[in-house]
Amino acid sequence: MTSPRIVVIGSGIAGASVAFGLAARSAAVTLIDDAMSGQATAAGAGIIAPWVSSSDGAYYETYAAGGAFYPELLSRLSASGITDVGYRRTGAIVVDRDPSRLAEAAVLVRERAAAAGAVAGEVTELDPTRLRRACPPIDPEMSGLLITGGGRVDGRMLRDGLLTAAAGSGAELVRDSVVGLTASGGSSWSVATASARVDCDAVVVAAGARSPEILGRLGHRVAIAGQRGQLIHLSLPGANTGTWPTVHPLGHHYITPFDSGRIVIGATREDGTGFDVRPTAAGLRQVLDDALAIAPGLAEATVLETRVGIRPMSQRDNRLPFAGRITDASGLWLASGFGAGGLTMGPLIGDAIARDILGEPAPEIAALQP
Amino acid sequence: MTSPRIVVIGSGIAGASVAFGLAARSAAVTLIDDAMSGQATAAGAGIIAPWVSSSDGAYYETYAAGGAFYPELLSRLSASGITDVGYRRTGAIVVDRDPSRLAEAAVLVRERAAAAGAVAGEVTELDPTRLRRACPPIDPEMSGLLITGGGRVDGRMLRDGLLTAAAGSGAELVRDSVVGLTASGGSSWSVATASARVDCDAVVVAAGARSPEILGRLGHRVAIAGQRGQLIHLSLPGANTGTWPTVHPLGHHYITPFDSGRIVIGATREDGTGFDVRPTAAGLRQVLDDALAIAPGLAEATVLETRVGIRPMSQRDNRLPFAGRITDASGLWLASGFGAGGLTMGPLIGDAIARDILGEPAPEIAALQP
Amino acid sequence: MTSPRIVVIGSGIAGASVAFGLAARSAAVTLIDDAMSGQATAAGAGIIAPWVSSSDGAYYETYAAGGAFYPELLSRLSASGITDVGYRRTGAIVVDRDPSRLAEAAVLVRERAAAAGAVAGEVTELDPTRLRRACPPIDPEMSGLLITGGGRVDGRMLRDGLLTAAAGSGAELVRDSVVGLTASGGSSWSVATASARVDCDAVVVAAGARSPEILGRLGHRVAIAGQRGQLIHLSLPGANTGTWPTVHPLGHHYITPFDSGRIVIGATREDGTGFDVRPTAAGLRQVLDDALAIAPGLAEATVLETRVGIRPMSQRDNRLPFAGRITDASGLWLASGFGAGGLTMGPLIGDAIARDILGEPAPEIAALQP
Amino acid sequence: MTSPRIVVIGSGIAGASVAFGLAARSAAVTLIDDAMSGQATAAGAGIIAPWVSSSDGAYYETYAAGGAFYPELLSRLSASGITDVGYRRTGAIVVDRDPSRLAEAAVLVRERAAAAGAVAGEVTELDPTRLRRACPPIDPEMSGLLITGGGRVDGRMLRDGLLTAAAGSGAELVRDSVVGLTASGGSSWSVATASARVDCDAVVVAAGARSPEILGRLGHRVAIAGQRGQLIHLSLPGANTGTWPTVHPLGHHYITPFDSGRIVIGATREDGTGFDVRPTAAGLRQVLDDALAIAPGLAEATVLETRVGIRPMSQRDNRLPFAGRITDASGLWLASGFGAGGLTMGPLIGDAIARDILGEPAPEIAALQP
Repeated sequence: MTSPRIVVIGSGIAGASVAFGLAARSAAVTLIDDAMSGQATAAGAGIIAPWVSSSDGAYYETYAAGGAFYPELLSRLSASGITDVGYRRTGAIVVDRDPSRLAEAAVLVRERAAAAGAVAGEVTELDPTRLRRACPPIDPEMSGLLITGGGRVDGRMLRDGLLTAAAGSGAELVRDSVVGLTASGGSSWSVATASARVDCDAVVVAAGARSPEILGRLGHRVAIAGQRGQLIHLSLPGANTGTWPTVHPLGHHYITPFDSGRIVIGATREDGTGFDVRPTAAGLRQVLDDALAIAPGLAEATVLETRVGIRPMSQRDNRLPFAGRITDASGLWLASGFGAGGLTMGPLIGDAIARDILGEPAPEIAALQP
Repeated sequence: MTSPRIVVIGSGIAGASVAFGLAARSAAVTLIDDAMSGQATAAGAGIIAPWVSSSDGAYYETYAAGGAFYPELLSRLSASGITDVGYRRTGAIVVDRDPSRLAEAAVLVRERAAAAGAVAGEVTELDPTRLRRACPPIDPEMSGLLITGGGRVDGRMLRDGLLTAAAGSGAELVRDSVVGLTASGGSSWSVATASARVDCDAVVVAAGARSPEILGRLGHRVAIAGQRGQLIHLSLPGANTGTWPTVHPLGHHYITPFDSGRIVIGATREDGTGFDVRPTAAGLRQVLDDALAIAPGLAEATVLETRVGIRPMSQRDNRLPFAGRITDASGLWLASGFGAGGLTMGPLIGDAIARDILGEPAPEIAALQP
Repeated sequence: MTSPRIVVIGSGIAGASVAFGLAARSAAVTLIDDAMSGQATAAGAGIIAPWVSSSDGAYYETYAAGGAFYPELLSRLSASGITDVGYRRTGAIVVDRDPSRLAEAAVLVRERAAAAGAVAGEVTELDPTRLRRACPPIDPEMSGLLITGGGRVDGRMLRDGLLTAAAGSGAELVRDSVVGLTASGGSSWSVATASARVDCDAVVVAAGARSPEILGRLGHRVAIAGQRGQLIHLSLPGANTGTWPTVHPLGHHYITPFDSGRIVIGATREDGTGFDVRPTAAGLRQVLDDALAIAPGLAEATVLETRVGIRPMSQRDNRLPFAGRITDASGLWLASGFGAGGLTMGPLIGDAIARDILGEPAPEIAALQP
Repeated sequence: MTSPRIVVIGSGIAGASVAFGLAARSAAVTLIDDAMSGQATAAGAGIIAPWVSSSDGAYYETYAAGGAFYPELLSRLSASGITDVGYRRTGAIVVDRDPSRLAEAAVLVRERAAAAGAVAGEVTELDPTRLRRACPPIDPEMSGLLITGGGRVDGRMLRDGLLTAAAGSGAELVRDSVVGLTASGGSSWSVATASARVDCDAVVVAAGARSPEILGRLGHRVAIAGQRGQLIHLSLPGANTGTWPTVHPLGHHYITPFDSGRIVIGATREDGTGFDVRPTAAGLRQVLDDALAIAPGLAEATVLETRVGIRPMSQRDNRLPFAGRITDASGLWLASGFGAGGLTMGPLIGDAIARDILGEPAPEIAALQP
C-alpha cells in the first residue's frame, strides 16, 4: 500500500503543525498557502502560559494540554534541525493594582500550576519592588503573581520552523490560491490552484478565519467567525528584554517582551470587522492606552511596527476549536477555531490530526470531537 | 420602479470604473473590495499610449478606444470634484538603436495616430540628441519616435479617484471578503461577506485574475489566467521627470516617468506563477537589466520600492477582455481579462458595462461580446 | 565680473527656497544635502493658514507675509515647469465645543483676514451641521470658524519642486555630508564633503535644528533648539478628503486632509529630545487621543504611517527665525529657526536671502534682522 | 581614586565593543549614538571566516585574531545574559568553476587553518554534488572548498547584544547628536550633544566613516574614507538555510544564509560615493547578477529588502584599521577603519582599547599602532 497523499490548505500554525506531523511520519504532503494577509499566526504575540488565562472548562483543558506539549514540540523540531523558534521560558506575571484581587486570582493559578506540574513551574507573589525588578517599566503601584513556567514564542519563526522541518521531510510547499476543491468519489479529492492541480486522498482545511468560506463551497457550515486583533511592536534599546516575563493584567491586554529590546503590546478583540486587516486609529489608541496604563515606563519606547491578524473564533458555547474529521464527508479534515490560543494549542492539535489521518492512535483531546 | 441594487466585486480599475459609472447614473451600488494583494491596478505603470503598442486587430481597436476615452473620463471625474489622478500627457517615445527598424515601426504608428486624430497628437522622429533632450538618461546611440498624445496616469490615484467619486454619488464601499455568492431566483442575487450580506439585482465580477475562481464556484468557466508583472520605482532627485515622456523599446519593457523625480521601470511578464506576489531575484534583475540597457543614465538612480501585480490575461486567441453579461446566467456580469491594458481600457469598458446594466444604450465595443 | 558661487547647506524648505531663489537669478549654486533623518520639512503637515495661528507680534507679521507670498511662489514654480506641489486652498477651520470661546477667537481672525485681504479670503461661522458637512468626521458638538483662504501643501513635493526648479536653472545638488567648512580669507569659503571640495564666495547654512552645530564649529553661537514633532497619516478610503479644510482646535493639534482619503493628524511639541527621531508610544497615543477627541469619525480610519521631524525652534523671546547674514563673518548666511512655520515662511525668507546675497534689494522682513 | 568616565561616540560594532569592554570592567561609560543612517554594522552580512579572505600581511593577522576571539566574545556575552546574537558556525565555502584555481586557493586556506587551529576547523574539498548538498542553489558546475569553522553573525543582534550587556553593567546609552567636543585641559573632555553635556576623562571616537569629520574638528587628520556597500536580503521559504554555509567565489561577492529561509547576498564596493546611502539601480543589478551567476537556484527567491552601509576604509597601504590612542592628544582614542572586516575584528579590538584606556595590559595587535 502506498503512502496517502494529503493536501493541507493554510500555512498558519494549524496547517504548519499538521504538515509537520504528517511529513515527519513519511506521508506525502502538499501544503498550499493562499498568501492572504491577516494571518493570526503572523500577528500573534506568542504567549505560552495557559495557566494564567481567563479561560475555563474544556477549553482550558485543551489550552493547558497545548502548553504541556511544548517541550516535546521543541525537541522534535530540534531533531529536524530547527533549533531556534524564538521560544523562551521567561515566566508570566499577572498584575493588578489591588493585591486582594490578585490574591483571588492566585487561588486558581496555583491550583492549575499544581495540576500541570513541572511545565508550569513555581507560583510566587511579587510585591511592587520585585515586580519592577522583573519588568522595570511596570507601574510602581502594581503587584504581581509570577508563574515561572510561562514562556513566549515568535509565531512567525515557529511557523517557518515547522514548514522548514516539513519540507526537510519531503513536504511540498506551494504558494498559490486554492481555486477549486472537488470530491472525486470515495475518499479522493482534487485540489486546483491558479496554476496547478493536485489529486489526493485527504484534505485538511486549516485556513483560519477563512475556513468557513472554503467549507461553505462544499456545503459544510462551521461556526467560526473572524475577530480582529491589533498589536504594536515597541523597542527599548539597551534593555535586556530577552529575560523579562510576559505581563498580564486581569483582562485581555498584555505585554510580551522578546530579545534585543523588542516588546509586543496588544491586543484588540474586535468582532464583526470581516477581513479588514488595516490598523485603525481607535485600535492603536486602545492598545497604547492599555499598555501605558500598566507600564508607564514604556512611554518613551520606540514604535517599530503594527500588526493585525484575524483570529478564527469558535462560536460554540464552550469556545472549543473545530479540529477533526468532518463527519459527513470522506477524507476531509478541519483544524481551525483556536481563537487567541492558536500558538499554544495549534502544535498539539495539528499533531493529533496528523496521527488520526494516518490511522495512528491519537490522544483524546476535547477539541477533536467534531 | 425602484432603482436596481448592484454589487460590484473587486476594486481595481474595472470594478472602480463600473461602480463610478453606476453611481453617477444614480444606481444603488455596493462595491466589495476583497483586499487581496497583487492587484494589477495598484502595481501598473500607467502608460496611456495605445498607439505605440505592439497589439493589433480587435484588441488594438478596443485599446485605442480606451485611450480616446480619457479626455471624457477626466472631465467626468473633475465634475465629481476629482481633479488630480496623476494623469499627464507628456508624450510617448518608441526607441531603438537601429533607425531603420524604427522607421518601419513609424509607418504603423503614423497610420494609427492619423486614425485616432487629436487625442494621439503629432508623430515626430527624434535623433539621438533630441531624444536625450526629451529624456536625458537614454543611451546616446538610441533614436526615437515621439507621439505627443501619449500620457501616463497613477493607477492608484485613478482607482481612488473613481472610488471617491462613486462614494460621493452614494456608492457604498465595503472592505471585506466575499464568502458566498448565490442566485436566489429570477435576477436576484445574494452576496455574503464575512460580516454581512447584501441582496441585489445584479452582480459584477471585476476581480482581476481571481475572477475565474469566483465564477467557478457558480459553475462558469472563463479563460483568464494570471500573469505576474514586477516593476521598480526609481528616484532621480532634482530631475524634472514630470515632463518626460514614457519610453518604449521595441519590446515589452518601458520607462514611465512621474513627477518629482519618480520613474517607473518594468515589467516582467511571467506566466504560470499563480498568485505569488513576491518580487524575485531573477525578476528584479531582468527589470534592472532591461532598463539600464535602454537608459544607462539611470544607473545611479535610487531604488525606492518594488511592486508586483497579477495581470488578468485573456486566453482567447485575439486576447480580447471578457467584459459583458454572462449569457447563461441572469443578472451576472464580468469585467476582467484586460491583460496589460487595464488602465487604458478599464474606464471605457467599465462605463459601457454600467450603461448596459442600466438598460442605457452602450457603445459597441468588440470586447463586450461575451 | 563673474557670477558668485554659493554653497547652500541643507535641503529642507529653507535651503531649497534659497537655492531656487539664487539659481533662478542665474547664480552658481551648489546645494549639499547631508541626508539626515528628521528633516522637519519632510515630516510637516503643511498648513498654510497663518491667520488662524496663535502667534502674535513680529512673528505673526512674518508668518502672515509668508502666507501672502504663496500665490507668487506657485506662479514662479509654474514658470519653471513645476505645476503640482500638493498645494490646495481648501479653507482652514478653527473648532471648539464652546461657541463663546470661538466668538472670542473670531475677533482676531477677522481682523487679520481684513488686513491680509484677498489671500485670506472670507471668514464665516459654521454651526455644527455646516461644520460636519465641511469635514464629516468632526464631533457633532463642535462649532467652527472657517477662513476660506487657508490652504495646505505637501512639504516633500514643495521641497522637491523647488530643488527640481533650481536644478533646471543650473543648480548642482550634492547628496553628501559636510565634513569641513573653512573661511579662506576675504569672502571666500571652502566647503569639504566626504568625497569632494567646493570653493565658493558665500555659504548659506540652512540645516534646520542642526544649524547651531555647523555654526558652532566656526565659533558662532545661535539660539536654536530642536523640538520633536510626531504625526500620523491616516486613510479614509472613498472620502473626498481633497476638498476638506484643515481643522484647528484652540491649541496646537490639527487635522490636515490631503487628496485620495489621506489625512494627517498631529503633532507633538516635545522639547529637549535631541535628534532622536523615533516615534514613541506616548507620542503616538497623544496624537491619536487629541485627534479622536476632535474628530471621533476618524476612529476607523486606517493608520498608514508615522512621521517624525525635528523643528528648529528659535529661542529668542519673540520667536523670530534667524535668517540673514552672520554679522561677524564675511559671506556667511543663516536661514533657520522657523519653528512650526517653516513651510509657510521658508519660501518668502529663502527668496529674500537669495536677493540679499546677490545685492538685489530685499524686502524688509522682521526675521532678517540678525 | 574614582573610576574614570569615558564617552564613546558611535554605536556600531566598534563603539558597542568598547562600551561593553569598559562597562564590564566597571568603568563609567556614556555611549552616544548619533543615529546616522548608513551604519556599516547594521548593513553588514556578518561573515566570520577570515581564513578564506583575500587579505594578507598584518591585516590578515588582525583579521584572523578577530575570528579567534569569537568563542570568548560569545562566552562573555552569555555571562551577561545575552545568549543569542544570531551567530552560528555553519562553515564557509570557497567556490569556483575551475577546480585548479580552487586547488591553488586551497594551499593558502589549509595553511591558515592549520595556523589557526580548532577555531578554523577542518578544510575539505567538495565536488559539485557535495557542494550542492551543502548549499542547494549553487551552480552545478561549481566545486568548493569547505572550512568548517566559518560562521556568520547577525550584525544588528550582535551590536544590540553588546549594548544591552553594557547597559546591564551600568553604561548609559544616549541617542543624540554630538554637537561639540572640547578638550578642557589635562585629560579632561567635554562632549556636548543637542540636549545635554557630558564631562569626562576620555573620549573614544568610533563613528565609522564619519570619524575623520569628528577628529577633523579637533585638527586631527586620519586617512579613512567611506566605501558604499549594497546588499540584498532574499527569502527561500521552507529551505533550512540556518544550516547552510556561507559561500565565497574568488572575489568580493558572497552569499550568507541565516535562519528561516533568509539569505543575504552582496556586496558592492563603491568608493567615492560619500554618505549617500540610497540603494541604486546599478548597485542592485550588480549584486543580483553576481549572486545568480554563482547560485542560479536563487532565481525565484523573494527579495525581502535592501541594505546599504558605508564601510570605513583605512587608506593606509597595509589597510590596517586605526585603533588606539591619538598620540598628539590626551585622553582621545580612535576605533575605526575596519573596512569590510568590522564584525570580525571589532569585538577584539574594542576590548583591547577598553583595556588600554583602563591601564590594563592590552594584547599587542598590529592595528593598535597609531
